[in-house]
Amino acid sequence: MNGADMLCDVLLTNDVNVCFANPGTSEMHFVAALDRKPQMRCVLGLAEGVVTGAADGYARMADKPAATLLHTGPGLANGLANMHNARRAHTPMVNVVGDHATYHLQHDAPLTSDIEGLARPMSHWVGRIGTSAEVRVRTEEAYREAQMRRGVSTLILPADAAWGEVQPDTLSPVVLPQPPAVPAGTLSAAAAALRSGRRAVIILAGRALRAGALETAGRIAAATGAALFSQTSDRTERGAGRVAARPVPYNVDQAVQALREFEVAICIGGREPVGFFAYPGKPGTMLPPACEVIQLAGHEHDLSGTLDALAGFTGVGRDAPFLANRFTQREIAAPNGVLDADSICVAVARALPEGAIVIDEAITSGGRLTALSPGLAPHDHVPLTGGAIGEGIPLAVGAGVACPDRKVVAMQADGSGMYTVQGLWTQARENLDVVTVLLSNRAYAILQGEMRNVGVNEFGRNARRMLDLDSPDLDWCLIARGMGVEAARAETIGRFIDLLDAALARKGPFLIEARI
Amino acid sequence: MNGADMLCDVLLTNDVNVCFANPGTSEMHFVAALDRKPQMRCVLGLAEGVVTGAADGYARMADKPAATLLHTGPGLANGLANMHNARRAHTPMVNVVGDHATYHLQHDAPLTSDIEGLARPMSHWVGRIGTSAEVRVRTEEAYREAQMRRGVSTLILPADAAWGEVQPDTLSPVVLPQPPAVPAGTLSAAAAALRSGRRAVIILAGRALRAGALETAGRIAAATGAALFSQTSDRTERGAGRVAARPVPYNVDQAVQALREFEVAICIGGREPVGFFAYPGKPGTMLPPACEVIQLAGHEHDLSGTLDALAGFTGVGRDAPFLANRFTQREIAAPNGVLDADSICVAVARALPEGAIVIDEAITSGGRLTALSPGLAPHDHVPLTGGAIGEGIPLAVGAGVACPDRKVVAMQADGSGMYTVQGLWTQARENLDVVTVLLSNRAYAILQGEMRNVGVNEFGRNARRMLDLDSPDLDWCLIARGMGVEAARAETIGRFIDLLDAALARKGPFLIEARI
Repeated sequence: MNGADMLCDVLLTNDVNVCFANPGTSEMHFVAALDRKPQMRCVLGLAEGVVTGAADGYARMADKPAATLLHTGPGLANGLANMHNARRAHTPMVNVVGDHATYHLQHDAPLTSDIEGLARPMSHWVGRIGTSAEVRVRTEEAYREAQMRRGVSTLILPADAAWGEVQPDTLSPVVLPQPPAVPAGTLSAAAAALRSGRRAVIILAGRALRAGALETAGRIAAATGAALFSQTSDRTERGAGRVAARPVPYNVDQAVQALREFEVAICIGGREPVGFFAYPGKPGTMLPPACEVIQLAGHEHDLSGTLDALAGFTGVGRDAPFLANRFTQREIAAPNGVLDADSICVAVARALPEGAIVIDEAITSGGRLTALSPGLAPHDHVPLTGGAIGEGIPLAVGAGVACPDRKVVAMQADGSGMYTVQGLWTQARENLDVVTVLLSNRAYAILQGEMRNVGVNEFGRNARRMLDLDSPDLDWCLIARGMGVEAARAETIGRFIDLLDAALARKGPFLIEARI
Repeated sequence: MNGADMLCDVLLTNDVNVCFANPGTSEMHFVAALDRKPQMRCVLGLAEGVVTGAADGYARMADKPAATLLHTGPGLANGLANMHNARRAHTPMVNVVGDHATYHLQHDAPLTSDIEGLARPMSHWVGRIGTSAEVRVRTEEAYREAQMRRGVSTLILPADAAWGEVQPDTLSPVVLPQPPAVPAGTLSAAAAALRSGRRAVIILAGRALRAGALETAGRIAAATGAALFSQTSDRTERGAGRVAARPVPYNVDQAVQALREFEVAICIGGREPVGFFAYPGKPGTMLPPACEVIQLAGHEHDLSGTLDALAGFTGVGRDAPFLANRFTQREIAAPNGVLDADSICVAVARALPEGAIVIDEAITSGGRLTALSPGLAPHDHVPLTGGAIGEGIPLAVGAGVACPDRKVVAMQADGSGMYTVQGLWTQARENLDVVTVLLSNRAYAILQGEMRNVGVNEFGRNARRMLDLDSPDLDWCLIARGMGVEAARAETIGRFIDLLDAALARKGPFLIEARI
């Protein structure tokens, strides 16, 4: 066997059995090795942003990493933006990046580049395999680091390490250490703060937004009067019967307003909320300056266990009451009037099936759905985490691969959708059960708002040429069909509802172009 | 005025008047400044690979840099692969990358990343503006470095440097130093080698492949018996009346075979040819081990002047004869039989108009056109330089913007075309005169060949799933029309010829999907 075979075997031994790929010449031995392992599901993306975004979406839903296969520095580079999003979501991911044979690097061949340099800003761990004899230990290290740090591992595989012979060996799964424990003193301080009578907020992120952890947080909140807020994370289990945490608003003024009353904040799974961007004269952090911040646990901790422990320290029993979301989905009135972001969100809310996975890259258009979500049938919400637009379509690919028995509903803005539109082809090829609601406003609407934020209300030709997506309009139905995804256009809310019902009733990918 | 205004003014003062852009929130003040400068042509790309690839194509044809506008680390990351190609083509380019306000970086907001770390591997020069007072000097430096090094400058513009006030000033163009001179001793040694009776080859790259430099090289070759070869570069002026240099083959065995007889090689504009990839048991450099290599001049030199000087040292007069390509375009017989890569290339060769710009990302499908090119009407050949596929459509955008009065004929493979397919929309929006010949073989055919090179002739399911582009087939006509580009499909060579004639006779973008 060769190094590439060993790499595949280590991945499979650790239950990494999906590889999102866009290979090149330097990875041919790895491709050949994958071809000898039918247990590995190889999923092709026609651009690397699809590959890494799909691996992110897969791991968010499968709670285990996928591998990616990327072609040298430029292939990695194309995947970096969605690695950034995965990094911000603390998604475990094992990227395998091919490189020239070790002895060929001296020639500075055309595709040669500084792969480590490119990988480092968007990876938690970067390693290079020296020889084929190192493949096993380095691959195990990449996997361990991805899992332990909940992060992005990038493993560089030179061609000669892939094709070099290695001794077969009996492999066993990597033993992962227990996550670190939160010190009792910190738990005690947090509990005391919650019982102090000060106005307190618990700010949840990451795996603290899963149903069980949310329920515990809800018991603590109900017992202490603390407020519950959430930050943008890998995914949130939402819906009726669950506990809702209120999202910290994206808009700085609204966020400051929402958090203005709090005297103490307990952060679980993430750090204190900060502004997505800076604006002249506005604050960079969202909590009041006098608010005490207790950093209870980060993404590396067992967040459900931490919340259990906090409940214990706070004197909240496992059967203490909590405020569960009431099921109100059937009470939502059918939207009528114009087709716009609001009416579309209402229509999606009414029709959302239980267990749906809502991919959210709606940008300026998804607010209403979030507002309605607590009353809907239980579902997952999977948002853009790192702000690098162009992840919605790939996230839907990954979620669809991870959860073939659940409906994926992708709320997708047009500007961000175009970044990785190639992912529609993978949805078709893999026959993924994804309904894409394409909100076509033919603008980078968020940037038009940001221009107004900086005081520009009249746009000249250059601003219009950079912020509008018209002239020509994109025809999303043609684009989708060109990639093998059935599609139809709605220009009225009635037509949209009909299309949505039909798309949800069938299996397989479908795109609804909603012109708003 | 603010820092962003100053940045625009410095660019315009230095005749940088095209900005390929995909902005975000942190660049709003820059967008507002561009909006106040109608002299700057802002061209939107719907993904950053389009932006940087277009800037590369523009500079190759305009012989001056364009600016790009990219949104923080992830926006830059999406543009890196085509910056890699530009770096390998020694294309001057000035990237402006927005970043958070300086004082906001401490908060590690979601979009924060190590922009310098991302930029360095694919840039010749990276700089960060500290305050608005530094905008002028840093922008001038970025421009100077791009021009002097013929390279990629990446200038990081924090939001507060963009919005901060600066004093207006009288600007003047940056004075660029003369390129370095090749030492007389090196010229003399090269001339002696050419006159030594040894079998000599002159290997040209970069601007040594422009018509005037090629003609001088042709005079030297005719007088000394030296062979002329070329390496993949930014562009080559090809066609009848000009001098042809034979491309060093991509295939290692063929390259070694083509160069096997030479005892001395004189490299002008690039270094000695090396293998694109390493293969077990095959050499990494292409010249015979005993061949003496004289590195006469690099991309930083005046290559036309260097060739003049070499002619002088070699005793070759300005009126010495050279072997010009004969005009044979009208003698090419119309292709018939099946529609395949060969017959398509013959059809394009017959119809190619004078002054055409041939963008070449045909990968495995373009060989016949290169073979026929010496006899065609004078034209430019603009190839993929760095091996990072996905630059053809953006290069066509840039060439079309740079040369509105010339026909752009883009020979585009399907696999690489999908990487930056979004560029078709920019072709439509800017009404660029681009005919795309889309060679649809529904495979990464080059990789199928490379798999056979590593000894795998029977592909299993995983290999087929990673190397084939079928199931579903891409419908390029729908995709192109979806982005506003008219398109039609050819399945016979007769139909292809008719479509090509019609597309060449009109202005504006058109895509021919040739199913081979």
